[in-house]
Amino acid sequence: RERIAESAERGLIHQIIIAIILLNAVVIGLETSQAVMAAIGPWLVLLDRVFLAIFILEAGLKIFALRPRAYFTDGWNLFDFAIVVASLIPTTGQFATLARLARILRVLRLVSAFPELRLVIHTLVRSIPSMGHVVLLMSIVFYIYGVAGFYLFHEIDPTHWRDLGISLLTLFRIVTLEDWTDVMYASLAVKPWAWVYYVSFVVLGTFVVINLFIAVVLNNLDE
Amino acid sequence: RERIAESAERGLIHQIIIAIILLNAVVIGLETSQAVMAAIGPWLVLLDRVFLAIFILEAGLKIFALRPRAYFTDGWNLFDFAIVVASLIPTTGQFATLARLARILRVLRLVSAFPELRLVIHTLVRSIPSMGHVVLLMSIVFYIYGVAGFYLFHEIDPTHWRDLGISLLTLFRIVTLEDWTDVMYASLAVKPWAWVYYVSFVVLGTFVVINLFIAVVLNNLDE
Amino acid sequence: RERIAESAERGLIHQIIIAIILLNAVVIGLETSQAVMAAIGPWLVLLDRVFLAIFILEAGLKIFALRPRAYFTDGWNLFDFAIVVASLIPTTGQFATLARLARILRVLRLVSAFPELRLVIHTLVRSIPSMGHVVLLMSIVFYIYGVAGFYLFHEIDPTHWRDLGISLLTLFRIVTLEDWTDVMYASLAVKPWAWVYYVSFVVLGTFVVINLFIAVVLNNLDE
Amino acid sequence: RERIAESAERGLIHQIIIAIILLNAVVIGLETSQAVMAAIGPWLVLLDRVFLAIFILEAGLKIFALRPRAYFTDGWNLFDFAIVVASLIPTTGQFATLARLARILRVLRLVSAFPELRLVIHTLVRSIPSMGHVVLLMSIVFYIYGVAGFYLFHEIDPTHWRDLGISLLTLFRIVTLEDWTDVMYASLAVKPWAWVYYVSFVVLGTFVVINLFIAVVLNNLDE
Ligand code: NA
Ligand code: NA
Repeated sequence: RERIAESAERGLIHQIIIAIILLNAVVIGLETSQAVMAAIGPWLVLLDRVFLAIFILEAGLKIFALRPRAYFTDGWNLFDFAIVVASLIPTTGQFATLARLARILRVLRLVSAFPELRLVIHTLVRSIPSMGHVVLLMSIVFYIYGVAGFYLFHEIDPTHWRDLGISLLTLFRIVTLEDWTDVMYASLAVKPWAWVYYVSFVVLGTFVVINLFIAVVLNNLDE
Repeated sequence: RERIAESAERGLIHQIIIAIILLNAVVIGLETSQAVMAAIGPWLVLLDRVFLAIFILEAGLKIFALRPRAYFTDGWNLFDFAIVVASLIPTTGQFATLARLARILRVLRLVSAFPELRLVIHTLVRSIPSMGHVVLLMSIVFYIYGVAGFYLFHEIDPTHWRDLGISLLTLFRIVTLEDWTDVMYASLAVKPWAWVYYVSFVVLGTFVVINLFIAVVLNNLDE
Repeated sequence: RERIAESAERGLIHQIIIAIILLNAVVIGLETSQAVMAAIGPWLVLLDRVFLAIFILEAGLKIFALRPRAYFTDGWNLFDFAIVVASLIPTTGQFATLARLARILRVLRLVSAFPELRLVIHTLVRSIPSMGHVVLLMSIVFYIYGVAGFYLFHEIDPTHWRDLGISLLTLFRIVTLEDWTDVMYASLAVKPWAWVYYVSFVVLGTFVVINLFIAVVLNNLDE
Repeated sequence: RERIAESAERGLIHQIIIAIILLNAVVIGLETSQAVMAAIGPWLVLLDRVFLAIFILEAGLKIFALRPRAYFTDGWNLFDFAIVVASLIPTTGQFATLARLARILRVLRLVSAFPELRLVIHTLVRSIPSMGHVVLLMSIVFYIYGVAGFYLFHEIDPTHWRDLGISLLTLFRIVTLEDWTDVMYASLAVKPWAWVYYVSFVVLGTFVVINLFIAVVLNNLDE
């Protein structure tokens, strides 16, 4: 039992699985090409099923070797398990798109397979709490500007301010500085003071984003 | 008296007020939907008045409990008070838009309600003085480029350089790197040396913005 | 003599000059408005001449008080002197635009008038050498990509790659990430491998700009 | 022998070579101008050949002076040698474009000629490993979003999602925040939930890029 666990975590089985994940990624890529699908489509579909079978087998082996309790308390094992289970969704019918996405997500298993990548993810995730309060503040600013923007501009420019959802999407776009003047000019044509709304949001938004960024940097420097 | 103050600052009253602010935010969001307004519009308007009454009551309680002098010397209390007073502007007639904005601003009370968010605001505000001189320098650069841009380009490209105000807005747009070449190409078509103006402003502008940013970072590192 | 120098550097004369510079800035701004010019144009022109006379007087006083040698070895005095001299260019005839720009530049005297702003400029200027080598490297990269871009794309897309100058301007635009895909798609339509050129330049360019930025930050941290 | 090596590395020969490289850069620039080529084109072509001959002579001298083993184990010598060899590709026929690019690359020899620039390159290259794992993670995210984007949007918007290659190029564009809303709006018109895909990718992408950036900064601070 322990030898199987060892092999599945670091040894031969682990390396075979990594190879399979990489092969699977290549197959997923090849399937996007119509020419390739016309030539060897059925073989790729078959390969895909074989890969799935191997992943199921591996999950079974690990559950057996580590015993269920240990297996299911490890976040990364749960992650692998969820991806394998999601791959069982039938690719036809109502959930076809979901099934396809689940199969693509198998590539993510590369992250759990390499300890170095797990570490990067841990670092990224660990820097999230330090952003917590700034994100909350950002949300409040977004919400207020969103509702205000809806009332101020939805009659002038329904494309960008049709409802609250679209307004928030427009604000997200503005905070990435993406063609924000197009939105402003549309409002400016009718309400000449509209620049106050846009310029204040751009300044406030970038200022808060920069502070978010600084929070992450300081958090990284601390560790 | 002290028990009321305690409760309003940290205890039960405080928690009820937070719940009311959140509910109020939801109501404000729902009111942007025409379908919801058609169905339960009058109820939402009623709810909104009830919320306002509660906020007035809370402000009264706090003024009574802390005594006016203590209440009105605290910045955050003044902030809450101003928002409540602004909500009393009638939603019809001349100031309808202002009244609506005042009501949306009530969501901002979330900031004053959570000590952590107050802290973020304090941090942000404290980093403003360190930006002071760079902002002043930036203003001088903007003003000079604004007047110069007006004289150089207002005949060629009235959309972007019509008057001093529009010119400054155009410069703000250029400093965010938003479609700045559209503005340049319009000038370049007539004055082939116009790139000197634009490229120098982009370089100067980003250089100063970066130094602004560094000033904020260093200020944060100091504390 | 020393009392005049003292007064011109820090005392009453200094404060009067600052007031005049600010007034002058306001006049320069007012002159951009056609309505204002129609109403009180001649008065503004007169005021402008009065200001110039005061600036000449001040320069004369300072040269007398500090003696020419001391005056002309100070960078900021030279700066002020150059701006005043440039203001003497006649506003009619061949150099009208230059004369106008010179008058606008007088606002820059605000920088030399406030010690704090001088300090900011000194800090900015002092961070330039630390950028020296990265800027040199950047220039080489720009030159190589510029010549290569000209040869590869000037027949396909003459708007952006007409000659070496325009090519360098286009590269500058790409490094600010401003609508760079518009340029790429034009090339991509004819040469399907053109993305290699653009993507590599964007990656290289932003990587070098980031390192420029880091050089400035480290330089600031050192001091 | 040692005196030649010394001279070629730091002394007179070194300085002549730097002058030649600079002259060569000027010639390469002049050749992009049709007017100049019409006037003195043949002379420039001749000059170019003379420069090439000098570079070959220099490479020969250095190989002789340092002996082949020492010469070819130094990365920068190899770099110079490769550029000279690539310049021998005939400028007519199949490889004309390649030959032209090789000649432009000679300007790069400026980097190997100045010790300070070599140092900058060393610094830049040394910061690459610290980016390794984040880049790997980025690639996985790109691959998954690329394949998913292809399946979700290639029927709606073939311009941006035609095949896997174009999809990855579109994602690169989105991560530079370049007109990313144009791509989103095209998808949004058919699939109203498409914003989830785009907004999540923009947030994830910028978050990872920022962490890349932080990795480089920390790496620089360490040294
Ligand atoms: Na942009
Ligand atoms: Na843009």
